[in-house]
Amino acid sequence: MPAVRELLEIHGTPEREVYLDNENSGWVPPEVVSYMLPYYNKRGYGHPSITNKPGWEALEVIEETSEEIASTLGGEPAGVNFLHSGTEANNLAVIGGARANRQKGKKIIISDIEHYSVLLPALSLEDAGFTVIRAPVNGEGFVDPDVLSALVDKETILVSIQAANHEIGTIQRLKELLDVVKDKNPDALFHTDACDAYGRVPLDLKELDLDMLTLSSHKVLGPKGVGVLYLKEGTRVESLLKGALSSQALWPGVENVPAIAGFKKAVELAFEDFQGINGRVALLRDLLMEGILDSVSDTLLNGSRKERVSDNVNISFLHVEGEALTVELSLRGVYVSSGSACTSRVLEPSHVMLAIGREYEAAHGSILFKLMRYHDKEDMNYVIDQVGEAVSRLRKISPLGKS
Amino acid sequence: MPAVRELLEIHGTPEREVYLDNENSGWVPPEVVSYMLPYYNKRGYGHPSITNKPGWEALEVIEETSEEIASTLGGEPAGVNFLHSGTEANNLAVIGGARANRQKGKKIIISDIEHYSVLLPALSLEDAGFTVIRAPVNGEGFVDPDVLSALVDKETILVSIQAANHEIGTIQRLKELLDVVKDKNPDALFHTDACDAYGRVPLDLKELDLDMLTLSSHKVLGPKGVGVLYLKEGTRVESLLKGALSSQALWPGVENVPAIAGFKKAVELAFEDFQGINGRVALLRDLLMEGILDSVSDTLLNGSRKERVSDNVNISFLHVEGEALTVELSLRGVYVSSGSACTSRVLEPSHVMLAIGREYEAAHGSILFKLMRYHDKEDMNYVIDQVGEAVSRLRKISPLGKS
Repeated sequence: MPAVRELLEIHGTPEREVYLDNENSGWVPPEVVSYMLPYYNKRGYGHPSITNKPGWEALEVIEETSEEIASTLGGEPAGVNFLHSGTEANNLAVIGGARANRQKGKKIIISDIEHYSVLLPALSLEDAGFTVIRAPVNGEGFVDPDVLSALVDKETILVSIQAANHEIGTIQRLKELLDVVKDKNPDALFHTDACDAYGRVPLDLKELDLDMLTLSSHKVLGPKGVGVLYLKEGTRVESLLKGALSSQALWPGVENVPAIAGFKKAVELAFEDFQGINGRVALLRDLLMEGILDSVSDTLLNGSRKERVSDNVNISFLHVEGEALTVELSLRGVYVSSGSACTSRVLEPSHVMLAIGREYEAAHGSILFKLMRYHDKEDMNYVIDQVGEAVSRLRKISPLGKS
Repeated sequence: MPAVRELLEIHGTPEREVYLDNENSGWVPPEVVSYMLPYYNKRGYGHPSITNKPGWEALEVIEETSEEIASTLGGEPAGVNFLHSGTEANNLAVIGGARANRQKGKKIIISDIEHYSVLLPALSLEDAGFTVIRAPVNGEGFVDPDVLSALVDKETILVSIQAANHEIGTIQRLKELLDVVKDKNPDALFHTDACDAYGRVPLDLKELDLDMLTLSSHKVLGPKGVGVLYLKEGTRVESLLKGALSSQALWPGVENVPAIAGFKKAVELAFEDFQGINGRVALLRDLLMEGILDSVSDTLLNGSRKERVSDNVNISFLHVEGEALTVELSLRGVYVSSGSACTSRVLEPSHVMLAIGREYEAAHGSILFKLMRYHDKEDMNYVIDQVGEAVSRLRKISPLGKS
């Protein structure tokens, strides 16, 4: 354990710091934190099902946040179910959705590049007699509607395909995919993990008639500790936990009201100038992307150049080990992740990278840069310089794959 | 939905406010909130499994909090598993513990007054072929060691009995119960929900060799959004969720680091003067308890007079409907709960009250006053006065049960 402390002492604090790992854990803007503060001890600190003033104030927070989220999705406040993370929401959608509908069939289809919190729950259902099909993606991460259509049959009870990928930022053509699924089997539930699309890509449930949709607070710069599973009216999922009923029938336990309040504020900020913010972030994204690809040799852009979310840059650096590069960049104040949080610990290449056809080395040398509206051009230029120097240094001392 | 807003407008803010519902949702002291703040955006805001500075800082928070909690329990930091609530921890202990040990037997024993987050998961296992036995309690809420001993057999894989009850505050004689269980079947896992005992009752795992123990941050005035399942080395439970692995193998998803930091601070404050704090709170408890019992007629103390946690007063007011009394008291700035949070919504009498032999009316008219070290004598005297007036008023306008 002292290992971490020693490491931090040696590391020190770089003069300039640019946090580009919002994919894995969000930096929370001061205005969101300020908004949360009263709910710890001034108002709404009660239990939302208890009949006293702090309890009613807590219920009000839950209702207001539900309304805010529903309004950004073109949905109904009653469809918003709060849990503690996107991971919990994806588990409830996949496992709870499959269990509640097991009388109708046993086939589940997911894309080959889903987040682990969709992929692993789905695979875990195989022990319970379900069949899980992984729809392939092309080199940019797109699922082909014709391929998907051919996979769907009357046995299919659940299809789960991300709105935007968490690693490579590819924006899936969800409407087409939804249409082919419902065309083949109107009873099949369609779930989308929208954690990385929400706030970046317009999602209108009036046009995109999804059955289930997952959101995560920290992915829109809200606090950690809140996820949402949005359910279309009538969609049945089986609860995974049992306990005291409060306002959230699908996830017992007292609601994390300060965090739910913070999520509301984060959503307000993300949507108050949706086009403007995403336009500005996309310019920074392109500056960073082109800057690195132009200045560093032996690089590959992962994902689509055009159809990608505004805040995602993912580049493979050949002849470099990705995790070594995250450490080298950390010492220079540039905080990024390699592959995905899910895989970095076990040092296996990301399944997303392999699914889009990257060779082992390119998969291992991938770095995700996740931007936010608080970044500016100077940050990007600093990152471009540091990435160039860090890659050079690592390639000199450890010429991986250059044999 | 505007119903809540209107209600709050009509309610207004009473001149004096005393929050006595820490059982259901905790008021968080300003010093705990201050301690959390840097972790939103100044340090440790990264992902604890990612190799960059904010990530390592996050890992350090998790390790330090694990050490702090382990030190208060006489346990090992490696035994501390973080989740998002006590409800999640109890579900993992009961469902995950049963599933991981189903080859050994199918019998589960719980006490008749467990929290819903133990009771309902246990009952849900009956569908999977487990047998659930509810050990009876006496009029004060104690499980008889001889009765428990007679229930335990070689088929018993799990026994779950609270350290202190969440409604009536009875401190279970856990050591005796643990001894009889292990005497009959050393392989049976013993789990205790210690949410309401932690910080009030000494718990030393060196003497009390429990297999599993549940804690909840908000019950020691930490923030909501963190629970702990402590596992003795070698204890196996089956994970209920699947997803990306981080530092918490049993509960995937990014750790709520600011809340985990807040939990650490709350534990430090609760334990820095354990005897002194609990002594002072117990004096306030006795002042409130005796004050109400002496001044209000037709009242019954629920639970044990002597062997109860320092912060719990639970009194049944005959001829009054409990929820109506919580509303009447709320208007007077006294914030309490009736029965339990679990039951208040459905207006069924609490199963705890029925288990200790309370008649339907006394069960319905029970009020839980949960104190904290931030209260003082003036608060207690104010509450005594307001309770007297509120009960008189309600008995006049609606003489329930006086027919």
